[in-house]
Amino acid sequence: MDGSNPGADTKTRALEARYGADALPAAGPWNATLDLLLSHRSVRGYRTDASLPEGTLETMIAAAQSAATSSNLQTWSVIVVDDPVVRAELAEVANNQKHILQVPLFMVFLADASRNARMAEQEGVELAGQPFMETFLVAAIDAALAAQNAVVAAESLGLSTVYIGALRNDPERVARLLNLPPQVMGVFGLCVGHAREGAEGEVKPRLPQSVIVHHGRYDSANEQAERADYDARMTAFTTRNEMATSNWTQRVISRLGTFKALSGRDKMRAAIEALGFPLR
Amino acid sequence: MDGSNPGADTKTRALEARYGADALPAAGPWNATLDLLLSHRSVRGYRTDASLPEGTLETMIAAAQSAATSSNLQTWSVIVVDDPVVRAELAEVANNQKHILQVPLFMVFLADASRNARMAEQEGVELAGQPFMETFLVAAIDAALAAQNAVVAAESLGLSTVYIGALRNDPERVARLLNLPPQVMGVFGLCVGHAREGAEGEVKPRLPQSVIVHHGRYDSANEQAERADYDARMTAFTTRNEMATSNWTQRVISRLGTFKALSGRDKMRAAIEALGFPLR
Repeated sequence: MDGSNPGADTKTRALEARYGADALPAAGPWNATLDLLLSHRSVRGYRTDASLPEGTLETMIAAAQSAATSSNLQTWSVIVVDDPVVRAELAEVANNQKHILQVPLFMVFLADASRNARMAEQEGVELAGQPFMETFLVAAIDAALAAQNAVVAAESLGLSTVYIGALRNDPERVARLLNLPPQVMGVFGLCVGHAREGAEGEVKPRLPQSVIVHHGRYDSANEQAERADYDARMTAFTTRNEMATSNWTQRVISRLGTFKALSGRDKMRAAIEALGFPLR
Repeated sequence: MDGSNPGADTKTRALEARYGADALPAAGPWNATLDLLLSHRSVRGYRTDASLPEGTLETMIAAAQSAATSSNLQTWSVIVVDDPVVRAELAEVANNQKHILQVPLFMVFLADASRNARMAEQEGVELAGQPFMETFLVAAIDAALAAQNAVVAAESLGLSTVYIGALRNDPERVARLLNLPPQVMGVFGLCVGHAREGAEGEVKPRLPQSVIVHHGRYDSANEQAERADYDARMTAFTTRNEMATSNWTQRVISRLGTFKALSGRDKMRAAIEALGFPLR
């Protein structure tokens, strides 16, 4: 238990930054860990002159492996990519996100069912329960739970992070670059480093809790009105922080409205199957 | 940044509990947040006489919403289930895990693409990028990142947790019980409460970092030998802590070796599609 109590001020500030002063959730217990979690921002500009303290990777991995994993199967792995040529190719897959080249630590998190497949081969047994959608989903969720603990660990050490979901634009190219065996897929990358001055930015507002949390049964009755309020907050946020002003509705529609914005991810199901996940 | 330094003792103890004294990772930076993350155990026995401090749910959700979400799409939701009749039915789906009935807070985390679908309908646009495997995967990963932050928040408040992946045994029954609209699936449950005395148990050892972390390219050359060492550690762990003694290899094979152990999850792909995710 984290017994520290930074007081009501940091709590109110943290909740106002995340929700806006007019959409605050009910007051609850608080501590320094919550201050840390609430202060998360994805950072897209990094110092190129600062390395990480020795052992940072090992500490992050210890945190990652401490997350829950379905039936202790541990169906995830991670590849640390240092080679600038490979990083450049991965950045190309990911719509040329330049921070992949800037950070001292770039990792690719893997949904990995291959370890259990090798075990079965070495033990001379068949895994009748393996070739199902469930296996892929468990592996992807295991990787996500682990990665989020790694992110919390990194941020607790004063580092910044950003996930790179755009590696899913071309999972087969990622697999070739990283020598992945069958039944392994890179589900996302993770950049870790020191934020460049000014790159950390403001905490991004999220939808009000009433839109995300349902009691007893799913209920979207007030959602449209809440979305309008959130759109206004996101308009103000983008005006303060970004080149372009837009609201949340516009952003979701521009992200999902066209086939082209998928950047190739329309072929992802076929790619997952080609990588050796039967998805039955 | 968490500036506390609990010193080398708690760090060594935490790493020894997670990896065993003969498989310690390289020493890295440390702080109280890392102590918290490393101390995680999934707890399967809860006090039924202790409620949560007011606002605990709201604090956990604020942490959950502070996790990264792909393109800020926020494609997850959560349902808080209080009704004992509904809880009993959910417990039945989940192989009768009794802690679902014990805890003061039981939540079902949802992969939720329906909010964007409603937005599109309200705005009179089509989301051409929506009916793909990518949408389902992003939603499941969003839910996992959010849930893991909620778990860290709960544990920072001295509470215990356990994920309930077995809700995936019958996603359509879960959807009926929770009144889920199309394009929403319960990906896992989460129990939150006060551990019953003695139920917290020992930290569970994980595979050595050398098996999980690859440098540059995937490489499983030493995996079989490392697995044998881990099997010995898990045999010792189960002997100390559980009724039955078994090693990791035996557990994975008993979990994945038979079709029957899937408990119905062989039908999950069809269920996801029936719930309105086209998975193209």
